[in-house]
Amino acid sequence: MFQAEVLKDFTRQVFLSIGCSQEDAELASTVLISADLRGVDSHGIARLAGYVRLFDHGRLNPTPKIKVVYQTPSTAVVDGDGGLGLVVAPKAMEIAMEKAALVGSGWVSVRNSNHFGIAGYHAMMALEKDMIGWTMTNAGPLVAPTYSLDKLLGTNPIAVAVPAGEQPPFVADFASTAVAYGKFEILQRKGLPAPIGWAQDAQGQPTDDSNAVRKGGGLLPLGSDREHGSHKGYGLGAIVDIFSGVLSGANFGPWVPPFATAGFMGTQQAAGLGTGHFVGAMRVDGFRPVEEFKADMDKWIGAFRNARAVEGHQVLIPGDPEREIERVRATEGIDLLEPVVNSLVELAGRFGLDFDASMARES
Amino acid sequence: MFQAEVLKDFTRQVFLSIGCSQEDAELASTVLISADLRGVDSHGIARLAGYVRLFDHGRLNPTPKIKVVYQTPSTAVVDGDGGLGLVVAPKAMEIAMEKAALVGSGWVSVRNSNHFGIAGYHAMMALEKDMIGWTMTNAGPLVAPTYSLDKLLGTNPIAVAVPAGEQPPFVADFASTAVAYGKFEILQRKGLPAPIGWAQDAQGQPTDDSNAVRKGGGLLPLGSDREHGSHKGYGLGAIVDIFSGVLSGANFGPWVPPFATAGFMGTQQAAGLGTGHFVGAMRVDGFRPVEEFKADMDKWIGAFRNARAVEGHQVLIPGDPEREIERVRATEGIDLLEPVVNSLVELAGRFGLDFDASMARES
Repeated sequence: MFQAEVLKDFTRQVFLSIGCSQEDAELASTVLISADLRGVDSHGIARLAGYVRLFDHGRLNPTPKIKVVYQTPSTAVVDGDGGLGLVVAPKAMEIAMEKAALVGSGWVSVRNSNHFGIAGYHAMMALEKDMIGWTMTNAGPLVAPTYSLDKLLGTNPIAVAVPAGEQPPFVADFASTAVAYGKFEILQRKGLPAPIGWAQDAQGQPTDDSNAVRKGGGLLPLGSDREHGSHKGYGLGAIVDIFSGVLSGANFGPWVPPFATAGFMGTQQAAGLGTGHFVGAMRVDGFRPVEEFKADMDKWIGAFRNARAVEGHQVLIPGDPEREIERVRATEGIDLLEPVVNSLVELAGRFGLDFDASMARES
Repeated sequence: MFQAEVLKDFTRQVFLSIGCSQEDAELASTVLISADLRGVDSHGIARLAGYVRLFDHGRLNPTPKIKVVYQTPSTAVVDGDGGLGLVVAPKAMEIAMEKAALVGSGWVSVRNSNHFGIAGYHAMMALEKDMIGWTMTNAGPLVAPTYSLDKLLGTNPIAVAVPAGEQPPFVADFASTAVAYGKFEILQRKGLPAPIGWAQDAQGQPTDDSNAVRKGGGLLPLGSDREHGSHKGYGLGAIVDIFSGVLSGANFGPWVPPFATAGFMGTQQAAGLGTGHFVGAMRVDGFRPVEEFKADMDKWIGAFRNARAVEGHQVLIPGDPEREIERVRATEGIDLLEPVVNSLVELAGRFGLDFDASMARES
């Protein structure tokens, strides 16, 4: 087991090694490791080597000049100058919160960025200021809209964080697909099939092949098929793409560059600049007194948490599972898969850093 | 077949008969019949008798003083004073658009309202001003969150309207459930079962009983079950509820009053005032020049519309199906089910209005 601080410090040193500033390396490592702490392993240190590959391929600017290119009192477009999404997104969120402080809400569409880690981190920045936080991002095309054979959307997540009073905050953070791609990678490693409703094959038919996406198939939108509302999941992913990509002047739809997957690193036709995000903040007291709102959020959370549940289960509040994992991992540490440990050993060798792989759990 | 103008004029006269002003009756009838025109039959004139029942039970104020009770430059809470949601929601949207004109975006949470018709109408108001429109509303509890036996959320729809250039606009308008309740009513009339994944029974188990919701079961969130992401549909419905209900001081969760169903008309415990909505508008040129944005939206729409499709299907843009129905119904007229025609004949009798039921298609 690796302590979060150890992983964060190593991540920080890797980002320093590719030329990031002290401030940016600190922020990026905090955001990246927050994913491991919250149990979103696919978006944490497992991607560190991928960010370095982006740098190697000239797709990552370690010293970006992040700037507001257009704004009104409550809206802005930020150009990330090709910097780490892990840095660009929280800086855009700071701008959104400054606007909210002044005029009630702030909404920032971001272009020329790349993968920003977990959406929830950025939305949760709003909580300590008694604001509601919104985050969305587009991503490389893996998802086939309803009836499409072509992959036109990313897993395009949405996160919304809402402060409460005595209760912990409400934090919804989910992809607009039936499942995230990481679920397939787990099945692939184990040689297991996938449930019907997660993916389609190259002919657009239901499949249980956990390798379907690599074979010309696609992930399915939330809802899985038309009869169960896949057009709604497609609509949701489309809204995320339009707000993140079209509104900012980033790439959108099939033109969004993939993260850092071998075979996808080459140049491709572009519709805009880099990956797009959309972040926003609303002051709770732009609507009603904070204490009244928080008392009602506590009542809301209580009603849901105390609902009668299916035998052997309980009704969870969005954010509960991640909070529970964070509680455990903050003390017991974080377990990493062998390929992830190997990728960190390799990075340590390349940059002359210390990394004690012996902390890995024997598998 | 009934011409839309005939239905609209009759609706206007009914709203005048219960005491609405000329202006409100005109607006309410326009909004209501827009649902019939767009093919959302469950939210159109089929509900007219329900609005009158709300009035009969003292739950509808025909002469509301709609007012802003709190605001910042980009946010507000509007109190609908118990008026028709068909009137309150577009007036709240006007306020959101005024704020957007001044500071880039405007966001209005609404309390003390009731059913507002189709969400898409209000979002689409933004289009002619080159703004992006957002609408949400909560509704009476019919939906069981993941693992819950209790019904805690309404079908809580979201609509987002985005202007394009040469292409027609993007208009997503969908409930946060696998299907709308109206789909069950159709199956009930025909005595048919429902697909698994639409509802659960009173024990929280999958069921194909199209009467399950009446027997203690519940509608399922978009995603249908945990394995296919029902916790995401639940999260989406929860966001709609919090933005519409908790942020405004309306009812929320299990406390949201039902529309006008017999047996649900009595007083019940309240957590706030009436039903809640959330509407918003963002100026496109709060982000980038309108012509650039519209050119990219056309490119977005073109890429999706021209995608390779499953045999016998095509990839649709959100808003396409409703637009096609509206094109047909605007000329050919609107067909109404016999129970709906009967309800209109009854209203005509009660208020001494003319209604020519002979225009109904023979069934």
